[in-house]
Amino acid sequence: MLSEFSLIDRFFARRARITPRAVLGIGDDCALFAPSAGEMLAISTDMLVEGRHFLADVDPHALGHKALAVNLSDLAAMGAKPQAFTLALALPQAREEWLAAFSEGMFEIAERFDCELVGGDTTGGPLNICITVFGEVPPQLALRRDAAQPGDDVWVSGTLGDARAGLGVLRQEWSVDAGDAATFCRALERPEPRVALGLALRGHARSALDISDGLAGDLLHILERSRVNATVDVDAVPRTAALRRLPSDLQRRCTLAGGDDYELCFTAPAAARAAIEAAGYSVAVPVTRIGTISALQNAAAEPAISWHDAAGMPLTLTLQGFDHFHAN
Amino acid sequence: MLSEFSLIDRFFARRARITPRAVLGIGDDCALFAPSAGEMLAISTDMLVEGRHFLADVDPHALGHKALAVNLSDLAAMGAKPQAFTLALALPQAREEWLAAFSEGMFEIAERFDCELVGGDTTGGPLNICITVFGEVPPQLALRRDAAQPGDDVWVSGTLGDARAGLGVLRQEWSVDAGDAATFCRALERPEPRVALGLALRGHARSALDISDGLAGDLLHILERSRVNATVDVDAVPRTAALRRLPSDLQRRCTLAGGDDYELCFTAPAAARAAIEAAGYSVAVPVTRIGTISALQNAAAEPAISWHDAAGMPLTLTLQGFDHFHAN
Repeated sequence: MLSEFSLIDRFFARRARITPRAVLGIGDDCALFAPSAGEMLAISTDMLVEGRHFLADVDPHALGHKALAVNLSDLAAMGAKPQAFTLALALPQAREEWLAAFSEGMFEIAERFDCELVGGDTTGGPLNICITVFGEVPPQLALRRDAAQPGDDVWVSGTLGDARAGLGVLRQEWSVDAGDAATFCRALERPEPRVALGLALRGHARSALDISDGLAGDLLHILERSRVNATVDVDAVPRTAALRRLPSDLQRRCTLAGGDDYELCFTAPAAARAAIEAAGYSVAVPVTRIGTISALQNAAAEPAISWHDAAGMPLTLTLQGFDHFHAN
Repeated sequence: MLSEFSLIDRFFARRARITPRAVLGIGDDCALFAPSAGEMLAISTDMLVEGRHFLADVDPHALGHKALAVNLSDLAAMGAKPQAFTLALALPQAREEWLAAFSEGMFEIAERFDCELVGGDTTGGPLNICITVFGEVPPQLALRRDAAQPGDDVWVSGTLGDARAGLGVLRQEWSVDAGDAATFCRALERPEPRVALGLALRGHARSALDISDGLAGDLLHILERSRVNATVDVDAVPRTAALRRLPSDLQRRCTLAGGDDYELCFTAPAAARAAIEAAGYSVAVPVTRIGTISALQNAAAEPAISWHDAAGMPLTLTLQGFDHFHAN
């Protein structure tokens, strides 16, 4: 196969359309890099594995997009501005066509978010993509998971469930018309990291994360880290028109336990409602209130989500066993 | 298998014996971290794959050590002080015994170099270990690859070739007595990153890298980035007594094209010889002069290494085809 150095030179050398931030980038033992004064680096790592995070026949351009998008989504959830990333890549063989499409997909989104590739590693091996991404955020403005407070509203961005519906289409778990199939598959393969929204929520939202494993599981991470409960109206969870054409039990499972949404779930005080709406409007991303944070019954209680429908009727949801793409 | 969260809690939660540097570590979307004033972050990523970087039956404790050691070696080669790392891990299954040994091996060296685990990712998949490591260095003191100058001495730390000899033993390419086999295998499985030496060389060495793919190939990276030639005395390349008991052609191939040495190769002006010796002495790591940097014949020339023996006789070495462990 092509040597590591030819691979890097050909497909991953620095692109001129991205602002260089590293003093020293690809080609030395380390990249040298620092955040701006008053800011901290927000750092996140995601590893993508064939069969777990993408199907073997995925379009490599889409895969290049998604590999960086899911990392940028972690920065978005922190309210951090993308700066740079490293890429480690294990490839069964170096097929030039595949690498050209993969790197093109990756650099398209890297350029859009002005995020510089500053280093990496390539090796032979079963296909594996590991990206570490670096953003900047003043620490006091970071959107953490442990800052939700009783009385906060629970919000989500965009719509949920389409990505899981797309996986169902690819797996032939259900069939839909071609237009809806395209909507679903696009959501699965081309997630849009909510970076601009994360930045707009600085100073307004209290806590945030990105929904990668399904709303039910991910919201619970905020509750556990913040030691609070939540009440959520399942009918308020935003869905596309396409998803609304699936049977209602499937809609519910896709939106609540679907995974791969890469929308933000965040909490904010009720007094911030207008500011949150304005933040969403300013970046053209819909934001929807779906519930409320409440105090734990006692200090020893396990944080939990209470689900109800639009009429206020409590629901007992059994979401276990609805495997999404990310199952460990 | 164990969920990602139970895995992280059980085996990878923050260890008390490591100085916490991140404002926010494991458990949020991102870690928050900044270098000290006047310093830059040195960042490096290495991905280790079964069959490429380690054998399937490797001791997991040794693998945990080596996975972090090879990353710390990149910091050493930059003259950077270790601060933190992220770990992404793909596992075919979560065997508790394996994970306990792997994490123990990793944390032993992390504690020794006071390097905090600040984030990561775990997933199912073919065994793959991707670490991104963060160090600190004032940018003007960083030991880069592009700073070698004609007249510089070429130095290496420690001894070369034992790791490749160990691979040969494991592969049954040659046999040696049990004592030498243990020496070689220890070099292969327990490389010692030359972090203290890298720090001691700040301000004295001009350029440096760590030898991961064999002296011949790696020194060439310095030459190419610095646009210079080198002359190297192959008989001056330091070897252990154990390696000296192998046939002399094997000694030469193991030392020059062996790979997995993780010693430093660096250049420094002749005026710095006493300072370099003192730096090595201060950290108890032998340093050996093996050659000299010279100017390219003309601006268009390809940088190259001229090899000679102790008597000054030029050698034409054919090192191609001697595969080491790291082959892409």
